[in-house]
Amino acid sequence: MFDDTIVAISTALGEGAISIVRLSGPDSIEIANKLFKGKDLMDVKSHTIHYGHIYEPETDSILDEVMLTVLKSPRTYTKEDIIEINCHGGIYITNKVLELTLTMGARLAEPGEFTKRAFLNGRIDLAQAESVMDLINAKTEESLTVAMKGVDGRVSKLVTHLREQVLQVIANIEVNIDYPEYDDAIEMSNELLKPLINNVILELNRILEVAKTGKIIREGIKTAIIGRPNVGKSSLLNKLMREERAIVTEIAGTTRDVIEGFINIGGIALKLVDTAGIRETEDLVEAIGVERSKQAISEAELVLLVLNNSEPLTEEDRLLLDLTKDKQRIILINKSDLESKIDKSKLNNFIETSMVEDIGIEDIEEKVKQLFDLGEIKTKDMTYISNTRHIAKLRIARESLENASRAIEMEVPVDMVEVDVKEAWIALGEILGKEVGDSLLDELFSKFCLGK
Amino acid sequence: MFDDTIVAISTALGEGAISIVRLSGPDSIEIANKLFKGKDLMDVKSHTIHYGHIYEPETDSILDEVMLTVLKSPRTYTKEDIIEINCHGGIYITNKVLELTLTMGARLAEPGEFTKRAFLNGRIDLAQAESVMDLINAKTEESLTVAMKGVDGRVSKLVTHLREQVLQVIANIEVNIDYPEYDDAIEMSNELLKPLINNVILELNRILEVAKTGKIIREGIKTAIIGRPNVGKSSLLNKLMREERAIVTEIAGTTRDVIEGFINIGGIALKLVDTAGIRETEDLVEAIGVERSKQAISEAELVLLVLNNSEPLTEEDRLLLDLTKDKQRIILINKSDLESKIDKSKLNNFIETSMVEDIGIEDIEEKVKQLFDLGEIKTKDMTYISNTRHIAKLRIARESLENASRAIEMEVPVDMVEVDVKEAWIALGEILGKEVGDSLLDELFSKFCLGK
Repeated sequence: MFDDTIVAISTALGEGAISIVRLSGPDSIEIANKLFKGKDLMDVKSHTIHYGHIYEPETDSILDEVMLTVLKSPRTYTKEDIIEINCHGGIYITNKVLELTLTMGARLAEPGEFTKRAFLNGRIDLAQAESVMDLINAKTEESLTVAMKGVDGRVSKLVTHLREQVLQVIANIEVNIDYPEYDDAIEMSNELLKPLINNVILELNRILEVAKTGKIIREGIKTAIIGRPNVGKSSLLNKLMREERAIVTEIAGTTRDVIEGFINIGGIALKLVDTAGIRETEDLVEAIGVERSKQAISEAELVLLVLNNSEPLTEEDRLLLDLTKDKQRIILINKSDLESKIDKSKLNNFIETSMVEDIGIEDIEEKVKQLFDLGEIKTKDMTYISNTRHIAKLRIARESLENASRAIEMEVPVDMVEVDVKEAWIALGEILGKEVGDSLLDELFSKFCLGK
Repeated sequence: MFDDTIVAISTALGEGAISIVRLSGPDSIEIANKLFKGKDLMDVKSHTIHYGHIYEPETDSILDEVMLTVLKSPRTYTKEDIIEINCHGGIYITNKVLELTLTMGARLAEPGEFTKRAFLNGRIDLAQAESVMDLINAKTEESLTVAMKGVDGRVSKLVTHLREQVLQVIANIEVNIDYPEYDDAIEMSNELLKPLINNVILELNRILEVAKTGKIIREGIKTAIIGRPNVGKSSLLNKLMREERAIVTEIAGTTRDVIEGFINIGGIALKLVDTAGIRETEDLVEAIGVERSKQAISEAELVLLVLNNSEPLTEEDRLLLDLTKDKQRIILINKSDLESKIDKSKLNNFIETSMVEDIGIEDIEEKVKQLFDLGEIKTKDMTYISNTRHIAKLRIARESLENASRAIEMEVPVDMVEVDVKEAWIALGEILGKEVGDSLLDELFSKFCLGK
């Protein structure tokens, strides 16, 4: 447990009806009580909410009318005493309330510090903590479900189960090392350990196979829509957005990537780069901004290249086709409702689309799934490992176990085999946050938003 | 009381740690209970908060881990049953929870509808309701204090007190009409009514005198900083912002005006228009965008015109001086630390400033107060009427009472005098929301933010 009390604004920045200033730590209740006119907070029960006023003790003037929630340790998010002050959601007023808690002895929380405390105080493991941020960042129903299973501990359970199996291997080896008289060492290794290890490897293979899909569900696919002016990029974009009704634009300052919108394609978020370029240049009869396209292409994991069915291929179209030839791309021959003047014989693997006649949208969805090798997405029934760090650790665990398996075949002494198996055990433990260092924790939680 | 249940996202839009979906109405608890796995909400006490999960009843899948607050009628913001669901603050997830409440029978709230219900259900009067929005929009400590007195009911008390005095006049008149035999009508009017009426007029004069300051505290002053390139507009702007450390930039979509920033000058918010223009043109050696300046000048209530002390006046400077001559303006001769080459004899009423040597900033503050006739601002001790609608009603009340006073002098029959006095009584009542029509209410509350 920590001996200082942290505070942050836990709602999104901006003017709203309500904003929350949240305190966590041993002095939360005392600090709030000094600023609160209403019931004496030292006397109230946990998990209760109280009407009152926040006032400036120095000038004795009322600052805001609030609802204040008291949550007492240990049944809280951080396992510490928590106070949530629901203020009127103005920017100035919220900052003012925050400031007052600081003058009363609270410390401004680092991004993610509430969740970090939840982890360090043992309420959740690291995999759960990491999933909290995924939940907040979720852009599709599928990514939400995957993240929720992380928060819920189902990912942790999966990893814990693997870890138990590995521990069983270690236990068997230890018994053998301590009491070598009981068994013939080599026989034991081959008959008992190898099947155990191989079982875990098989399970890891299965998990890693679907993890690829999980990662794409979680992160989406960075997508560029390119094409020369007037081929219909803008209307395609509008169509995709309207059809799926799931466009979410980012609020400035919350993303690191320059992502400008999201389209939900069959549960996968296509993260659009440089949509401004599309809208800006669409209406202008001008030479294509090749440099700009190059930039968008290089950033993208998927390129939707739009051509115009009603015109012959131009030099610019050919240039774009050439620029994207090594990319994951989908060629869209748009305006398929118009008379075709494009030479399709030179193109292969294209989709014909018409925004007017609503043709081709579903084909795009199919094509995306095919290009990224996404199986049927069953987020409800399946637990996907989706976090890059977790996937990397699972790979290390698998590799270590494969080394162990090979070592057994080569009749390496069992205590040498144990080194590999223990590596697998540690790698799996790191997913849950066992034996991870401070610097890793600092890095992981710094990616959180403030107040979480 | 209403028979439908409304719902809205009550926190600012954007990704945060926590967002709140708020329900109000007779079915709030029942609707939430259908979506909540945790305690049975029908059985819990009011003003308690509960840990649990929101799930989709149709697919039986968990959507989010939440803290849910139950507030039972009548001790709530709207006097109705209220449920607040504190979700993980993602945009997608919050909208998803909102959607579920809609499918369960809640109706999406109009902007301001929660506060409208608080008013219509009689918890607060209209003046208090209107102050809620001022509280959220407050940009300075002073505007916050003024708004809080509104929310708190001190403005209402002031108006109620005026209204009682007016009612006393009416009562006296009524007695006189009903029992004319008791008194000589004209004598009564002159001796009793006139002093009563004049007292109210005096009080109204006093309130309206300071209301001008109140209005500026509440609304700030729309300010344009203009000047040709390289006179130091950009560094002035930065200086003002840094000095006061109270710049608040708006989040896109929350303002109606094109206000780009706020500077807190002695408790008054200078609302800056077209700061982009400043930053853009500052570094370019180019002809001044006269059209752009004209636009900014015409929108502004105050112009800060910046000249360069180290250069003679140019044609462009003269043009800007001429364009602003009928405006409330402050001429700043900047770079006063450099050798003066400007002809000050032709200028009057200017302030010399140097951003390098930190000269003149306080003079600007003084000048603003002088130009806008702001007295000493004492928000702590004084109740300012600041709302334009309220000020207009007070003026009507004063005018009606002045008419009544004149009528008495002209020995008009007392029942004719009563017509004027009743007008004053109605006007004051309208501030509190007595006898106001539906269309006015709709208009007032539509200016609220969603979820309030």
